[in-house]
Amino acid sequence: MATEEKKQETVKPRLLKGFRDIFSAEYLARRWMVETVRKVYERYGFVPIETPALEYVDVIGKYLPDCDKAEEGIFAFRDSDQSWVALRYDLTAPLSRLVAQYPNLPHPFRRYQLGLVWRDEKPGLGRFREFYQFDIDTVGSASMAADAEVCMVICDALQALGFAKGEYLVKINNRKVLNGVLELAGIPPVDDKGEFTAQALTTLRAVDKLDRLGFKGVAELLGPGRRDESGDFTRGAGLTAEAIALIEKYLGISGKGREEVLRSLAELVATSPMGQEGVAELREMCELLSAVGYDSTQVTVDPTVVRGLSYYTGPVFETVLTVPCRDEHGEPRQFGSIFGGGRYDSLVERFLGEKMPATGVSCGLDRLLEAMRLLGRIKTPKATSQVLITTMDKSLMAHYQKITHDLRRAGIACEMFLGQGNIKKQLKYADQWDIPLAIIIGSNEMARQEVTIKDLRKGRELASKIEDRETWKKAEQIQVTVPLSDIFSKVQEMLKI
Amino acid sequence: MATEEKKQETVKPRLLKGFRDIFSAEYLARRWMVETVRKVYERYGFVPIETPALEYVDVIGKYLPDCDKAEEGIFAFRDSDQSWVALRYDLTAPLSRLVAQYPNLPHPFRRYQLGLVWRDEKPGLGRFREFYQFDIDTVGSASMAADAEVCMVICDALQALGFAKGEYLVKINNRKVLNGVLELAGIPPVDDKGEFTAQALTTLRAVDKLDRLGFKGVAELLGPGRRDESGDFTRGAGLTAEAIALIEKYLGISGKGREEVLRSLAELVATSPMGQEGVAELREMCELLSAVGYDSTQVTVDPTVVRGLSYYTGPVFETVLTVPCRDEHGEPRQFGSIFGGGRYDSLVERFLGEKMPATGVSCGLDRLLEAMRLLGRIKTPKATSQVLITTMDKSLMAHYQKITHDLRRAGIACEMFLGQGNIKKQLKYADQWDIPLAIIIGSNEMARQEVTIKDLRKGRELASKIEDRETWKKAEQIQVTVPLSDIFSKVQEMLKI
Repeated sequence: MATEEKKQETVKPRLLKGFRDIFSAEYLARRWMVETVRKVYERYGFVPIETPALEYVDVIGKYLPDCDKAEEGIFAFRDSDQSWVALRYDLTAPLSRLVAQYPNLPHPFRRYQLGLVWRDEKPGLGRFREFYQFDIDTVGSASMAADAEVCMVICDALQALGFAKGEYLVKINNRKVLNGVLELAGIPPVDDKGEFTAQALTTLRAVDKLDRLGFKGVAELLGPGRRDESGDFTRGAGLTAEAIALIEKYLGISGKGREEVLRSLAELVATSPMGQEGVAELREMCELLSAVGYDSTQVTVDPTVVRGLSYYTGPVFETVLTVPCRDEHGEPRQFGSIFGGGRYDSLVERFLGEKMPATGVSCGLDRLLEAMRLLGRIKTPKATSQVLITTMDKSLMAHYQKITHDLRRAGIACEMFLGQGNIKKQLKYADQWDIPLAIIIGSNEMARQEVTIKDLRKGRELASKIEDRETWKKAEQIQVTVPLSDIFSKVQEMLKI
Repeated sequence: MATEEKKQETVKPRLLKGFRDIFSAEYLARRWMVETVRKVYERYGFVPIETPALEYVDVIGKYLPDCDKAEEGIFAFRDSDQSWVALRYDLTAPLSRLVAQYPNLPHPFRRYQLGLVWRDEKPGLGRFREFYQFDIDTVGSASMAADAEVCMVICDALQALGFAKGEYLVKINNRKVLNGVLELAGIPPVDDKGEFTAQALTTLRAVDKLDRLGFKGVAELLGPGRRDESGDFTRGAGLTAEAIALIEKYLGISGKGREEVLRSLAELVATSPMGQEGVAELREMCELLSAVGYDSTQVTVDPTVVRGLSYYTGPVFETVLTVPCRDEHGEPRQFGSIFGGGRYDSLVERFLGEKMPATGVSCGLDRLLEAMRLLGRIKTPKATSQVLITTMDKSLMAHYQKITHDLRRAGIACEMFLGQGNIKKQLKYADQWDIPLAIIIGSNEMARQEVTIKDLRKGRELASKIEDRETWKKAEQIQVTVPLSDIFSKVQEMLKI
């Protein structure tokens, strides 16, 4: 009865749906990824900034792809002043706020930012409501060199992570080309204020689904509308058959190299000034890329890339992994875009009343991490300790502490066992954390001024394939006893530092 | 009129009070600090974890020092399921939730965590509503070796940051000693459930204000109460004069070394078993510290350290900088505790219904950063670029891009100027970002296959002290023209890489 009463008083430890704890193996893998990409961002001279997690709702607005429903979207609430505030849903909206707020910032302002973002969306497999974004953006430059640079950064980052040429592909396009096609099809792409017309936006979002639906599905969305497998109906853009045919022709354009695709695009939009401008911008980017050796196996012009966000005004980028990737069940796994972005020359306008050129890209850290994990390319450990100093005899604690201390001073990350339990339990702890070595000193070793060093890593390897007595005997060799004075050299040798 | 209309439509870019943007100079300084401390945490074998920013309110509770008023405290709101959720206010409450939620975690669980926390408190000078904490904790170990280790980590971290012995002091104490004193003064420190009595908690919080109020103020808070300068009255603990005298005697204990203080404390609480237990725990910690050479210039026993939080159950730690620090106006500046923490064996009890030993410390990154800045010990730059490649002649863009690319390949962080404007404006940009070198190539240089490299860093130094024509002449020497083929060696030489 007393126990039950106690149980009723306790709180159930739990997390919000779509939120998660990150343990050391994943943390250390992500950290390695972030530091590798960061080095590339910094080599390009992008400077880091941080903005707060909370922003005023009217300030950051709500620019989310495919997010029209009111119940989807952001975590918003009233603060103590009764103002609506929200957890940021991306890093681009806060950047545009920042650029408007500090007019004396040197321009171009080229910044990188790593930060958590929050979306109050339905969580799903691999889809979380809290996740990291890792962005670079150049604000205050209308130059296509800024857009070309984004492509270079993506290639360099992926190659720094170990992806070879041919294992990834940066796909570029330009919204102005698609706008040109719309113009030719008789659909005004933008209104008097320079904003997308509803029909153009519906068209854009339909085209963005090409990967998922194929052209048949896209054509339905461009025309009268589409009913999906669940029976839900999505209203279409209501384009004519001629317009749809022109868009199909545009989406079908491909070629051997960037120049061939650009020629075909130029031909298609020959009579649209906006379309021609888009092709010229792409050409300028490609010339800079070619000048420094980024070829079409790395960066390709792809008319099907349009991006779902309405605010892009020029070049758009997507990046896919082309190396085949299989999940734990051996099934092929696709990851979507792992670096996506584009140019958005109008986003700061809501604050300043005038346009300010800006372009950038966001790295999808979670997708990239999952892909690299499935590809077996994550080499980071689970523990930080290299050695566990076991504590068998509590009367020797000062001695154990001294050995631990000296190893740390020698630069070896290690820990002294601080829990309760016999040697078996202590070694199990080391195994649970994948700690490579354990040091064992009992009163006998102490009297002889010796230490026993156990190679737990080798032990775990052998344990996974032990079949006969011979192998067992070998397993015996995974521990050595050496004089106390040899401890550093032996540990270093066994760790192969 | 049109302009006015436009202005009315714009949104004012602004932040919530107590929130801030962090720019590169501060970001890079903090990053250096974090990475330095992280290396120490990892050398001790602490493993990193991350927990979400949002937690259920009933799960994380509200353990804040001196926070009894309802309007102060945390950012809480109802989520889409109408549950009360909050932005975490520290990293300890989420850790205790995590430990309870994953019963199969190997124990002891020794983790570090770096993360933002949010407090809905009145912002003030240097007091923000969003800030970082950087904690280590050992859960599942009752050993005083875990507490001694916390002290070692603090010393190692501060020394890694460049503080010499004697420039900082870790002050330790044990709640059980104070409880022993309360017992002797006839005040029951804890109730049947092992929780602090109201009188004991008021006493604790009064003693915690010794630094600020002096003993006279503390005595008022221990007795009938205290009226502050603003006229506000705080009710006191209502202790007798004898009890207050005993506490004064306890707080006055000091000595030459740790052993002397421990002897005086042992004497004072000689007849209190709880007090004796506290002294014995402190002695055990001190023996381990002495065994590995952390002396009383680094770690001292200080009876005045009690910490304001109610959940500490044993050893408590505070760390002060003892190196004199002055602000921009030459006024002495105190920083309070920069590493604070203690043992909290009961915090997980709310989930599990039973105690689980735990101890740890939190690093006050903001205070530490501000102190190091005022001490002139921050050496990190403002920009990441080492070189700005100016773009005077737009027809040479591919050439500029090639030089930029080659420098990056050689490991030199650099950027090509991507904005608008003449060479003067471009060099001003480099000065605004403190970029050390600029490369200038016009059509003349191009024709001769040369580059001009300008040492902007030296230029800025000279500009700050130019007085006469001679110095001006020297200033002329801050730029050199070299053959294009010598660019890397010359840049490296000028950067002294």
